[in-house]
Amino acid sequence: MAIVLGENRYGKAENRVFRITRQGDTHEILDLNVSVQLMGDFTETHLTGDNAKVLPTDTQKNTVFALSHKLGPLEPEAFGIALARHFIGTQQYVSGAEIRIEQYPWQRIVSKGKPHPRAFRRDGSHVRTATVRASREGASLRAWVTSGLEKLVVLKTGDSAFKGYLRDAFTTLKETDDRIMATEVTACWRWSTCDPSKLDGVDWATSHRTAMDTMLAVYADHYSLSLQQTLFAMGEAVLKQQDAIAAVRLSLPNKHHFVVDLSPFGQRNANEVHIAADRPYGFIEAVVQRDDAPPPPATWPNW
Amino acid sequence: MAIVLGENRYGKAENRVFRITRQGDTHEILDLNVSVQLMGDFTETHLTGDNAKVLPTDTQKNTVFALSHKLGPLEPEAFGIALARHFIGTQQYVSGAEIRIEQYPWQRIVSKGKPHPRAFRRDGSHVRTATVRASREGASLRAWVTSGLEKLVVLKTGDSAFKGYLRDAFTTLKETDDRIMATEVTACWRWSTCDPSKLDGVDWATSHRTAMDTMLAVYADHYSLSLQQTLFAMGEAVLKQQDAIAAVRLSLPNKHHFVVDLSPFGQRNANEVHIAADRPYGFIEAVVQRDDAPPPPATWPNW
Amino acid sequence: MAIVLGENRYGKAENRVFRITRQGDTHEILDLNVSVQLMGDFTETHLTGDNAKVLPTDTQKNTVFALSHKLGPLEPEAFGIALARHFIGTQQYVSGAEIRIEQYPWQRIVSKGKPHPRAFRRDGSHVRTATVRASREGASLRAWVTSGLEKLVVLKTGDSAFKGYLRDAFTTLKETDDRIMATEVTACWRWSTCDPSKLDGVDWATSHRTAMDTMLAVYADHYSLSLQQTLFAMGEAVLKQQDAIAAVRLSLPNKHHFVVDLSPFGQRNANEVHIAADRPYGFIEAVVQRDDAPPPPATWPNW
Amino acid sequence: MAIVLGENRYGKAENRVFRITRQGDTHEILDLNVSVQLMGDFTETHLTGDNAKVLPTDTQKNTVFALSHKLGPLEPEAFGIALARHFIGTQQYVSGAEIRIEQYPWQRIVSKGKPHPRAFRRDGSHVRTATVRASREGASLRAWVTSGLEKLVVLKTGDSAFKGYLRDAFTTLKETDDRIMATEVTACWRWSTCDPSKLDGVDWATSHRTAMDTMLAVYADHYSLSLQQTLFAMGEAVLKQQDAIAAVRLSLPNKHHFVVDLSPFGQRNANEVHIAADRPYGFIEAVVQRDDAPPPPATWPNW
Repeated sequence: MAIVLGENRYGKAENRVFRITRQGDTHEILDLNVSVQLMGDFTETHLTGDNAKVLPTDTQKNTVFALSHKLGPLEPEAFGIALARHFIGTQQYVSGAEIRIEQYPWQRIVSKGKPHPRAFRRDGSHVRTATVRASREGASLRAWVTSGLEKLVVLKTGDSAFKGYLRDAFTTLKETDDRIMATEVTACWRWSTCDPSKLDGVDWATSHRTAMDTMLAVYADHYSLSLQQTLFAMGEAVLKQQDAIAAVRLSLPNKHHFVVDLSPFGQRNANEVHIAADRPYGFIEAVVQRDDAPPPPATWPNW
Repeated sequence: MAIVLGENRYGKAENRVFRITRQGDTHEILDLNVSVQLMGDFTETHLTGDNAKVLPTDTQKNTVFALSHKLGPLEPEAFGIALARHFIGTQQYVSGAEIRIEQYPWQRIVSKGKPHPRAFRRDGSHVRTATVRASREGASLRAWVTSGLEKLVVLKTGDSAFKGYLRDAFTTLKETDDRIMATEVTACWRWSTCDPSKLDGVDWATSHRTAMDTMLAVYADHYSLSLQQTLFAMGEAVLKQQDAIAAVRLSLPNKHHFVVDLSPFGQRNANEVHIAADRPYGFIEAVVQRDDAPPPPATWPNW
Repeated sequence: MAIVLGENRYGKAENRVFRITRQGDTHEILDLNVSVQLMGDFTETHLTGDNAKVLPTDTQKNTVFALSHKLGPLEPEAFGIALARHFIGTQQYVSGAEIRIEQYPWQRIVSKGKPHPRAFRRDGSHVRTATVRASREGASLRAWVTSGLEKLVVLKTGDSAFKGYLRDAFTTLKETDDRIMATEVTACWRWSTCDPSKLDGVDWATSHRTAMDTMLAVYADHYSLSLQQTLFAMGEAVLKQQDAIAAVRLSLPNKHHFVVDLSPFGQRNANEVHIAADRPYGFIEAVVQRDDAPPPPATWPNW
Repeated sequence: MAIVLGENRYGKAENRVFRITRQGDTHEILDLNVSVQLMGDFTETHLTGDNAKVLPTDTQKNTVFALSHKLGPLEPEAFGIALARHFIGTQQYVSGAEIRIEQYPWQRIVSKGKPHPRAFRRDGSHVRTATVRASREGASLRAWVTSGLEKLVVLKTGDSAFKGYLRDAFTTLKETDDRIMATEVTACWRWSTCDPSKLDGVDWATSHRTAMDTMLAVYADHYSLSLQQTLFAMGEAVLKQQDAIAAVRLSLPNKHHFVVDLSPFGQRNANEVHIAADRPYGFIEAVVQRDDAPPPPATWPNW
């Protein structure tokens, strides 16, 4: 028996890239948080501290900013592919890369009834995400792309029931056909192809906006018998809408809002006044996928 | 010399009240975080542990929910006044109360082009705040009310300079007439009267919305020579607009975005690619007030 | 009626100063978070954007690091006084300063049974704080100093009751003479003198350590009839111990741990299994002071 | 092509279990955060909302507290195995479970020179973790156990260099043989066997303490040529020490402390005064394993 190096990677995390693109007096902005992880031939630095094959994370940071300048305001998925291509294409010891990008949305401030050309406010309703996992394949690149979103908090005050569930000795929950159902959506969807040339024409912004709008509409319109059912319906709608997406993964914490018992004070609370609870919370996770979806890429071991 | 009890107060913090108001199939929601602090004759519990004059914080919590049910969906300022009036009016040992309320805004989800009657998404752009500081004045109540907002993140990509400043031996900053100016606005504004009956007719929601919109518009339109100048202009505009407000207090961290030096890589960065920094940050605080503003209420000692 | 500038201040917040002091191969470290706010003659920058009297916050940052280098590893209170003295003493337009410092404690890593001379682990049990509020008084300086601590989480499983309290229509709480009492201590204590020369000889580190140890011991040994009573006893003990301290302010959230009702499952839970709750929480605040304590300094308006 | 349900699981997250074990007047405490996720035959609830096979997360919560009461103060790994065994053993539709537990360490408060029998302070230096991934295997259970820790912040002021690294067009970093090396350790180590009966005799507490102490000592004593080298040495030492552990996974953010350039002020900063930076940060992750380590369990897809 010997002790050996297993899976490993390294990089520079949370490079906060903020870009202005000027078209005369009107400015567009792009606000990204870019994290780079590189995989490759890094055994020596682990075993002996010989750094000859190590591209410093400081250099990776410089590269992120310099490429952002050179390439202009790319969508997160496209910037991720470009960064992966750069590191794998120019660094002989790098065989793979994972680029994770968060995009923070902004809206123009409205002044005198018009969107201002150079002033913005944060749209705190969600964070857009993109992840590119790429590897060298001979002379070319394979790139698995996922798009997604986080921190999208939604709540519905009707059209939600939970009953008919399994009971055992530890069951005390009452059935209900009128409950608040609230969650904070974390969603990501992976693209079928891993040939980056086939992704060149994707309109990432439109795809993302329609995916989010679709999930929101399904959530709103759906009569929910369980959060699982709602989850499946949300993922299914995205797949029906966009052929190039292979699968959707959703993580939905059940943000409980409990009806407050006011009967000790002689008040009848008809599901009107609730207390919003923090912990514990239900947590529902699932993948909705095409039955012919290609397998997902290898990911960092999460045991 | 003796050791004595000084200022003191106690209460239940962060009661998360979530209300549904149903008008047929259309629901309105109200999402509050209510904190109560009571002042009064509480020396005994501190000195001997005799709790005969102590209204438990658990009871305060029950009261918050029961009164929310009884009073319906009040605006935060009005609910704060009502809670203060209840505690001071019904509890003989309570002489003062501070009620702090955060309101989390929500928007209706749009489905099929229409706002949904029962489905909502969090509007994460800001948090609305209200504080009521009240005390018994003979048979009546004095109530100092402040309205406010927090976590409103804004950024402008033009119309901002910083130059002509004082220099000393530790100055290395370069002057600029083209910088990103970004901040996270914390604002509160206090109402002139402390006679609650004079506040009965206030349309708190409209007042708050117009104050926020006004500050945003000033921020956007203003050519800024310093963040201080912008702060004053924002506060001044609110006072010019709403006669019943005595003073505005603003706290504006300077969320620095630094131009990245790409010259080592032969690239000329024309204020295009920036790095968003976390710490340290400039921090500007000021009160803008009418010269005949009544004095503010006593507050909790903050030394 | 005119609109005027009220109280105002500005500065650089959260300068993260980390110092190494080498004595041969043995190193001492000092880990501070230093925030500076200056008060003075800053009306012009607010009204017209004329910055001629404004010392940039960037310069303040440089000053913090340069003075830390020049002055060596001072205790937080002493460093705060030195910074206040520098800004007020060298800047004609600055008449006052508030310096807030957090110190993060570290312990030496133990290796082969001995504390390592150059390797450390964060002691996450608390954060030490110091605040200096200073103003120019003719040719000299007045400085109000407070020392303190934050994030000290304590819990006792016995010797705590809560009963005999006031009851009203909203009371549902049961009396108990066996409850968990837990809190996260935020404490600060102010020094009687505001003549900084009288503070030159103070052993700040020893004073702080003994104050914290004393409060911990009182908390542990005290039979508590209310959290208020425990608060008073903790503050009183510090004042009895250290003559130069005028007053202690304590803020104690009641971190509730509720006994779980297991009777539906036929189990008798003898105050053994609890659920730790997040919100809402009781919140107890008070000042314990000498009856001849000098008045506290003016602080930033907190309405 | 059809749209189908892929991997899925659900459960109750963050059950905050706090236990007191009384031995006369001396109390032991155990502070856990327990999250349950169940896998099994849950297609129906996703596709039709039929909940007949769904054990509500509320019931899972009740079960966690009831079993904690019944089983007594188990170590996190043992409690995780017991919970997994319960859910898989009693629920016919459940085929697998993942139990994640955080344990928050506490120390006794010292009063009058002695540890107090019933009063405690939080030891904020780290969080202990345990994860059990279990599945039904015929009539028995397979259980993959990992132990770990999080939030252990360490720093060394000497014995750390970084040089000899790869250079490219984007390299600006200077080599150093005297740098601060600081990180926040997240570590987990998985046990070789997945036969829970073979784990019955493990002294989890001792194993955990020695693993942590060993990693700390290696970190302190190691002369580091790269954070990767230090990571490998830390993992290797744990494997050399404890035969039953198959692999160690470490995630080490490089918490940068930069030497402040004081030369503009005529000061020579001999690596004495640093600024602690927040973002971006280097991030090093690797697995150190035995060459005959059994494969890890399947984990939740993380694309």
